[in-house]
Amino acid sequence: MCVLGLGLIGGSLLRCLDAHPAANGSAAAAAGTPRAFGWNRSPATVDAARAAGHDASADLSATLERARDEDALVVVGVPMPAVAPVLAEIARIHPGAQLTDVVSVKGPVRDAVRAAGLDAGYVGSHPMAGTNSTGWSATDPELFAGSRWVITSDGGGAESTWRRVAALGSSTGSRLVALPSDEHDRAVARISHLPHVLAEALAVAGREGGDAALALGAGSFRDGTRVAGTPPDLVRAICEPNAAALEVVLAEAVEELGASLEQLRRTGSLGDLVDRGSAGRAAFEARQGEAGGAPLDITIGAQGWLDAAVAAGRRGQEISVAF
Amino acid sequence: MCVLGLGLIGGSLLRCLDAHPAANGSAAAAAGTPRAFGWNRSPATVDAARAAGHDASADLSATLERARDEDALVVVGVPMPAVAPVLAEIARIHPGAQLTDVVSVKGPVRDAVRAAGLDAGYVGSHPMAGTNSTGWSATDPELFAGSRWVITSDGGGAESTWRRVAALGSSTGSRLVALPSDEHDRAVARISHLPHVLAEALAVAGREGGDAALALGAGSFRDGTRVAGTPPDLVRAICEPNAAALEVVLAEAVEELGASLEQLRRTGSLGDLVDRGSAGRAAFEARQGEAGGAPLDITIGAQGWLDAAVAAGRRGQEISVAF
Repeated sequence: MCVLGLGLIGGSLLRCLDAHPAANGSAAAAAGTPRAFGWNRSPATVDAARAAGHDASADLSATLERARDEDALVVVGVPMPAVAPVLAEIARIHPGAQLTDVVSVKGPVRDAVRAAGLDAGYVGSHPMAGTNSTGWSATDPELFAGSRWVITSDGGGAESTWRRVAALGSSTGSRLVALPSDEHDRAVARISHLPHVLAEALAVAGREGGDAALALGAGSFRDGTRVAGTPPDLVRAICEPNAAALEVVLAEAVEELGASLEQLRRTGSLGDLVDRGSAGRAAFEARQGEAGGAPLDITIGAQGWLDAAVAAGRRGQEISVAF
Repeated sequence: MCVLGLGLIGGSLLRCLDAHPAANGSAAAAAGTPRAFGWNRSPATVDAARAAGHDASADLSATLERARDEDALVVVGVPMPAVAPVLAEIARIHPGAQLTDVVSVKGPVRDAVRAAGLDAGYVGSHPMAGTNSTGWSATDPELFAGSRWVITSDGGGAESTWRRVAALGSSTGSRLVALPSDEHDRAVARISHLPHVLAEALAVAGREGGDAALALGAGSFRDGTRVAGTPPDLVRAICEPNAAALEVVLAEAVEELGASLEQLRRTGSLGDLVDRGSAGRAAFEARQGEAGGAPLDITIGAQGWLDAAVAAGRRGQEISVAF
């Protein structure tokens, strides 16, 4: 396994793979194949990873040659602005790579992979885990345990890549969900990126009330603004690559809130926004709980397996892949 | 102490007073004066309170006659729509009452108290504690411990009432904050009522994404929609009495989000909303932490004591009242 980019997600993944060697593939583990190895642009990060006992390099070309020679699954873990240059280097050195990425937006990565001519070996990933911190110092080998790992598949990606990516996600302790890239991006705009934008707006509104208001803030303000504690550059890096999908849901929210404001002015009531919001929260709680159901067993390569996996993702059901 | 209305706040207060008899006033405790007593419109609630060992009645007139005869501080704990009729009964039976209330909005209660001719003995309260549940079954004698108890004073209210209300708030384990009613209402619109409205809108937006989106919701969506789990009628009862102040901050939020949407469409960036939101969250955290400073010691009746208490509230500082 070759991890390119050792920030929060890529670095945590390298640490996870080294902590749980079976995650490197059971065949590899059985054969005593070397551990995972990683690359990072910053020598300081490479030094920190090495000091912690990991196999890391600041030489991208050499790392990709090794990935080619060892037939490693290549995991692109760099921020969106660095994806295209890294893909170009992969295309130059290892054009037949089996490839995934762990960027939080999937359509733009898929497009960049196609542009680089790498889509035959590509299946996307989005491990939905994170913290408000960034960089190697924030990495955690248990970061992924219990969280969702979305596998995106838009028709490209050989079954063998799919199998390796599913094994990777499972081995980190994540729960697998299959979705097409664009549907993933629209979903995370609603449940991840819009929450960031609303939290920022709420934090601004609270501060406008000065110290008297901030001193009175309690649970609702604390929870509503929690993700506004994320470093601003990280928020932009998370949300802005998904601008197209975020625009749609932000426009919906602005219209919803504007209508509520008009109703409040006209009638003194918030009206049915409150009922619909309560129903939405209840639906979320039900979906997060047992009502989500057991994972659907998928055998990669069996008749209709990919359609079945995606259909499960669309109804919010996880998949369990037999290896 | 006479508590009118035994819902979440009033009922918790009755239970707190009975659990901590000194909260009934040190003089009363020393004299062996009877415990607190309460009234509720619903006989079922009265029965439940009595079964738990509390002194409760469904007869408002008799309860107010007793409050008059025992010189009890009267605490109005009914929902806003029931405040005016209860005040009318107080004015009829006990027009010289020393009086406070625990309604979450203060300007409208103050106006109703003035209209009932009771303002000479009135000082308002807002214990900023709560849960997502309502009614006697949700009451908790420790509900107030560590939360803020805002005392509102608009020039009415004798010092002796202020002293009793401050003693009441302190005895529940709350931290006292003094503010004028209108400033309180504007502050809670920002840090309590707007969070409710944004949470409802976020929950609606998430549900619009269907099961696929709800299944992917994690920390940011969970925290951002938590208060949308509050029963709809309770949300309306909390927010709508403060409609005037809420309109102002909701209009600000709609404008802020609309501007961000325009910027996102035009430039692909959320721009400085993210920086300003981050600064707002940091200011909130600083204000909640030690930076809020020690409470200001206040001696009720001393030269300039009320102005000093309100000035502290405006800068987010608690007060500590010597008795």
